[in-house]
Amino acid sequence: MKIKVALGLMLSAATLAAFAGPVEEQIKARQSAYAFLGWNTHLIKSQVSDHPETYNKEKVIAAATVMAAIAKAPLLDLYGPGTDQGTGWKPSHLKADYFQKQDEIRQINDTFAQEAAALQAVATQGEIADIKTQFGKVGAACKSCHDQIRVRD
Amino acid sequence: MKIKVALGLMLSAATLAAFAGPVEEQIKARQSAYAFLGWNTHLIKSQVSDHPETYNKEKVIAAATVMAAIAKAPLLDLYGPGTDQGTGWKPSHLKADYFQKQDEIRQINDTFAQEAAALQAVATQGEIADIKTQFGKVGAACKSCHDQIRVRD
Repeated sequence: MKIKVALGLMLSAATLAAFAGPVEEQIKARQSAYAFLGWNTHLIKSQVSDHPETYNKEKVIAAATVMAAIAKAPLLDLYGPGTDQGTGWKPSHLKADYFQKQDEIRQINDTFAQEAAALQAVATQGEIADIKTQFGKVGAACKSCHDQIRVRD
Repeated sequence: MKIKVALGLMLSAATLAAFAGPVEEQIKARQSAYAFLGWNTHLIKSQVSDHPETYNKEKVIAAATVMAAIAKAPLLDLYGPGTDQGTGWKPSHLKADYFQKQDEIRQINDTFAQEAAALQAVATQGEIADIKTQFGKVGAACKSCHDQIRVRD
């Protein structure tokens, strides 16, 4: 019986690993997601804060749509065992105690997805002041996660 | 007069560079976009072709939504002068003759965005056969661009 359970667990772990890919691939995929999020964040910040004269409604909608889509993706599947170690495009910055904070992180991740969805909604409406306010809330969600789980550079 | 025009061109180039970022940042951002696209492509392929028993409608919608959003992003802004050289996360694979094929590439990029939007639509409907068919069309759009502008590994 014990053997059966152990075998079952091993198979589940193997299936999960096959789905999310090897540790390096998981790290690379999540680093890619956050890097492309970063580029889109930069595009929005540039158009609503730093250079409002360049504001282009369609471009801000496109960037916010990317952010909302990535935020809703199952990014937490890319935080499998061992991904606090190893290197994707660059070494993982994940704190080792991530694995003891699952419920908290899931909550932060949900908040991030909700705030990003709200950003997409206000981008579609096109009021710069509202976009700026909501952009700040998305940034706060990013930061709350970084503070919890990311080793500082 | 000539000086004024030249100065104008220099300023435009400088503004553009400030917007898209330095060459390395442009390459890194586009490599990130394609890598995360790749992960989402893998998720869909896995669920509709390789392991249909794992099909999860919401996860396929989420992945197709990411693909459609990234495909609609202004990725071509990340192909500025000099980005056939240089290194982002890894060396650029852009063929040098990219810059002589602008109209063709713009057309392929539009097709890619349309096919990815259609994939998002069929994912939402949830018919696996339709998703598979449309997934093939997105793959064909990817390949047509790779054949044109990407140096093979």
